[in-house]
Amino acid sequence: MKQTYISEIPKHLGGEITIKGWLYNKRSSGKLGFLEIRDGSGIIQGIASKKDVSEQCWSDCERVTQESSVIIIGVPREHPKRPGVYELDIKDMQIVQVAHEYPITPKEHGVEFLMDNRHLWLRSRRQHAILRVRHEIIRAVRDFFDNNGFILCDTPIFTPAACEGTSTLFEVQYFDDKAYLAQSGQLYNEATAAAFGKVYCFGPTFRAEKSKTRRHLTEFWMVEPEVAYAKLDDIMELSENFISYIVGRVLENRKEELKQVERDTTMLEKITPPFPRLEYDNVVKILQLGHAEGKLENRFEWGGDLGSPDETYISSQFEKPVMVHRYPAAVKAFYMEPDPERPELALCVDVLAPEGYGEVIGGGERASSLEFVLNRIHEHGLPEEAFNWYLDLRKYGSVPHAGFGMGIERAVAWICGLEHVRETTPFPRMLYRLKP
Amino acid sequence: MKQTYISEIPKHLGGEITIKGWLYNKRSSGKLGFLEIRDGSGIIQGIASKKDVSEQCWSDCERVTQESSVIIIGVPREHPKRPGVYELDIKDMQIVQVAHEYPITPKEHGVEFLMDNRHLWLRSRRQHAILRVRHEIIRAVRDFFDNNGFILCDTPIFTPAACEGTSTLFEVQYFDDKAYLAQSGQLYNEATAAAFGKVYCFGPTFRAEKSKTRRHLTEFWMVEPEVAYAKLDDIMELSENFISYIVGRVLENRKEELKQVERDTTMLEKITPPFPRLEYDNVVKILQLGHAEGKLENRFEWGGDLGSPDETYISSQFEKPVMVHRYPAAVKAFYMEPDPERPELALCVDVLAPEGYGEVIGGGERASSLEFVLNRIHEHGLPEEAFNWYLDLRKYGSVPHAGFGMGIERAVAWICGLEHVRETTPFPRMLYRLKP
Repeated sequence: MKQTYISEIPKHLGGEITIKGWLYNKRSSGKLGFLEIRDGSGIIQGIASKKDVSEQCWSDCERVTQESSVIIIGVPREHPKRPGVYELDIKDMQIVQVAHEYPITPKEHGVEFLMDNRHLWLRSRRQHAILRVRHEIIRAVRDFFDNNGFILCDTPIFTPAACEGTSTLFEVQYFDDKAYLAQSGQLYNEATAAAFGKVYCFGPTFRAEKSKTRRHLTEFWMVEPEVAYAKLDDIMELSENFISYIVGRVLENRKEELKQVERDTTMLEKITPPFPRLEYDNVVKILQLGHAEGKLENRFEWGGDLGSPDETYISSQFEKPVMVHRYPAAVKAFYMEPDPERPELALCVDVLAPEGYGEVIGGGERASSLEFVLNRIHEHGLPEEAFNWYLDLRKYGSVPHAGFGMGIERAVAWICGLEHVRETTPFPRMLYRLKP
Repeated sequence: MKQTYISEIPKHLGGEITIKGWLYNKRSSGKLGFLEIRDGSGIIQGIASKKDVSEQCWSDCERVTQESSVIIIGVPREHPKRPGVYELDIKDMQIVQVAHEYPITPKEHGVEFLMDNRHLWLRSRRQHAILRVRHEIIRAVRDFFDNNGFILCDTPIFTPAACEGTSTLFEVQYFDDKAYLAQSGQLYNEATAAAFGKVYCFGPTFRAEKSKTRRHLTEFWMVEPEVAYAKLDDIMELSENFISYIVGRVLENRKEELKQVERDTTMLEKITPPFPRLEYDNVVKILQLGHAEGKLENRFEWGGDLGSPDETYISSQFEKPVMVHRYPAAVKAFYMEPDPERPELALCVDVLAPEGYGEVIGGGERASSLEFVLNRIHEHGLPEEAFNWYLDLRKYGSVPHAGFGMGIERAVAWICGLEHVRETTPFPRMLYRLKP
């Protein structure tokens, strides 16, 4: 009999349908069995009445265990007291497999245990909600760029050279050669932007950082747009429109999931352009004042990069994401365009998410002068030969251009209000976590 | 002045606009300069008349070189004789940078030279067309699954174990551990399908094959759907609907690009469900007959896997993709479900594209019996410990399930009618090609 998905049940009320799924939970009260069934698209409570079903079916209801696979024939109807909630009157049930004793029970489990059983943990309501939000964010990201004239240009994972030094790169034996796993597609984006005008890449990136924090994965997805002829202001505008669009899409299409993860959406609803813009110089003043007032432990000095507590403090001053721009060039990558009015500053921007989620976007203008880029490569001790093709972009029709990168997992963590990025992807990879 | 993209020109006829782009080509006839300008969104011919522009502008038109970056102010109008073609009357021009002598000229270049200059080659009309088709295929793939109730579950690149043996895996030093780059997300898809019912993953995959053929890349994008409770027939139906949808989308939205790569679309227009289904046993007979008739060099024996000439011969018998199913289990991966009627056969399917493009899809049913999978892991000499989580899927509510994988680059090559996969991705990676 044709399978009906639980998500489609409102279209089948009163008719007999077949659900193929798994037993999520059950309880019984004498002659009634209450079986919560999940099939990936949703969860529904099935009710078996001893007097209405066959003896075989009733005994199957009694022996079926958590996460056993079952095919159920029943008739769905709306819950008598809760509109929009559906139940299934069970007519018959076939057990596909009686599950072994399931390791994840409704009681509390430690995080390490759940991570070891990530392949099973994914079956829970909470993980469903998070991964559906992730899917919505990814769709929204692609729709935003696809509908705004950007061309998707996938950049390579195997790269011969490092974008920002080799210390946090994973090295691979590439036949008789060495390759590194890409940390970013940006350098390649600069080539494709010179070809297509507006481009984006969107794929996994890799950082061999020995950081064991709630914000770090060794493998994470990043979307990076790059726009020829764009300046810092253009890219700041793009950032705020982009983030606002994504948050809006999740609020619109994933209300139930946000409720499931107990996300207070008040703050998310405020995310509309424009976002506050803050020069680094002013950030320094705010941080120093915060220190003087005893709200920050360390006194921040001009010239340093923002640490997590600094980012949290700054973003806590605003209800929207805040765009910090014009950092000292010395703390940023070699390819940043200097501010013509103050060359010690880079024309860059970091977007800090509210509620302590820190940097979600980093970007800026890329240097377009051949001589300048060449000097920076030398100053950074990078091998010029590896950058020949990159330098070509400054020889053949160099233009101002700018772009940014947003890590998907941090965006998911922020939008879902999660404490740790480990739940934002089906199989997270961290310093000590390579399985399952 | 606000930038107008060439693709938007039909909305701005008769008005003054600013185009920011590069000089693609130029010629002059005395007092008229014909400048082909590209900006990534399209190419337009600009016409400068010596008597109408400033002296500075005219001399700039004379000195500007191929691929120089230029900002042009002009008025677009429809070509007097070619409807749908636009030209730009140039009013003024600003050269952003005069390009050094551009290495790629309209004359013929060798493939190795073009590949060495891939970052520049991408600026050509042909590469634009191919990469726009690629983008359309990727959008169509995602739309197909997103609109059919599938949940995107990205699977990890770093994996501790091998899906089909380690000989073609890239190894990575993962801190104090070893990891391999994923060849497929399938094993993980089986876990997420048991959680979400219908899932897909879509990301780069890696094969360390020492093959230097027109079909092989070491890094390529693969989409893999997986469906709980699906059987071989379901997945064959999904395959033909999927491929037909994608081809249809490209025909609908990328007509101009297919013309640019000189694709004869007659064959593509025939791609609608159902596709012919052919059992492996019958394939053997066709191949043996082909040999007897002198059309195939080697006699194919039952039990072998299909080689490229075999695939080409079989697919040449049909106008649509052909679905070859039920191969001998011995030539397929360990996780294949055996045919209950003939256990020496696997319930698998390969979809062979027409016109000699070979396998574009491989898939099938996955074994659901714990005992069977355990035996196969031992028979294949795979480390049981690494598959514990995979075996769990057979302990906790095992269900029949099936899925397939399609490599994007081969699909692009087929749909564009390309000889080699190297042009199907911005920066292809091959045995001897890691740059740029």
